[in-house]
Amino acid sequence: MFVTLEGPEGAGKSTVIKMLAERIRAQGFTVLVTREPGDGPVGKQIREILLHGEKIASTTELFLFLADRAQHVEAIIRPALQRGEFVLCDRYSDSTLVYQGYGRGLDLDMLRRLNEIATGGLQPDVTLLLDLPPEVGLARQGSKDRLDLEPIEFHQKIRDGFLKEAEAEPGRWVVIDAKQEVDKVIEGSEAALKLRF
Amino acid sequence: MFVTLEGPEGAGKSTVIKMLAERIRAQGFTVLVTREPGDGPVGKQIREILLHGEKIASTTELFLFLADRAQHVEAIIRPALQRGEFVLCDRYSDSTLVYQGYGRGLDLDMLRRLNEIATGGLQPDVTLLLDLPPEVGLARQGSKDRLDLEPIEFHQKIRDGFLKEAEAEPGRWVVIDAKQEVDKVIEGSEAALKLRF
Repeated sequence: MFVTLEGPEGAGKSTVIKMLAERIRAQGFTVLVTREPGDGPVGKQIREILLHGEKIASTTELFLFLADRAQHVEAIIRPALQRGEFVLCDRYSDSTLVYQGYGRGLDLDMLRRLNEIATGGLQPDVTLLLDLPPEVGLARQGSKDRLDLEPIEFHQKIRDGFLKEAEAEPGRWVVIDAKQEVDKVIEGSEAALKLRF
Repeated sequence: MFVTLEGPEGAGKSTVIKMLAERIRAQGFTVLVTREPGDGPVGKQIREILLHGEKIASTTELFLFLADRAQHVEAIIRPALQRGEFVLCDRYSDSTLVYQGYGRGLDLDMLRRLNEIATGGLQPDVTLLLDLPPEVGLARQGSKDRLDLEPIEFHQKIRDGFLKEAEAEPGRWVVIDAKQEVDKVIEGSEAALKLRF
């Protein structure tokens, strides 16, 4: 079972994913919690460039995310799925589509083809969208990285992009209201997963 | 004027490019000598991952080269060309096509499309191929990096790939016999460039 979490920074993805993993483990599954960009030695180096690199061109950023994804799928996600594990991944292809496409204006069809190459066609069974108005997400954030410094309009495009993708593929996406208390968000996420499996 | 050098390790590309730059400067041009992967701060980090990373998937390698190229074109090559400089670049798109396509078996049409995205369509005016049988190139090499450790068949595919590309686009490529003494190689390269400009 391959489940991805999407949504803006500040939506609580890392807390939710940790709590979800505990609850799924309590039901007897082996759970792998992972994230993009960045698990594994290659991914960590790529993450370093992405988060702190100066003046990165938008296509450079795109290809770095794809490099990270290709390595992540091949070295971490596919082997775990083949061992029969439950994989929970913080961000995946949809983040590329939404941040680089809806956010930075790169062509959506091109991005879908590139994601296909990077993942070798591996799609999540379920994608949970932790949806949040940008001003709430930004206010919740502590440290500022490169993305947090984008103008509010950029973050609004991201939110709209995620919602549009979720609407276009309702069989895979579940939209969770992340303005709620974190306990409610986790309950909602768990309930949505139970409905699917 | 945008000139790229292609060919295997051990063909003498870095010596030839340095000497060519001197001769072109002597004619009053401003010359920028650069290389892929790796000039600039982002490129250096990418080069580090590529040359020393463990167990890199072939699509990861591909996307890292493309990320490096996108940054290199945007931050270094295009600005130099716009300032009217003569740009000499050690490896470019053709290396991706030949190493990842002919060498690792990735689809050539896909690679051409990806190169197009990474370069924004910027093609060299002239590409000099320093052609050399693999056994000669490998014997000349001192330090061994990840590519040098590939079997001889891999290096043979690389040579054949370069020659095939050169044959398909004779208006851009010039094939130089790199088995010759380095002075002859430089003379031949300089003569070929003079013929084109």
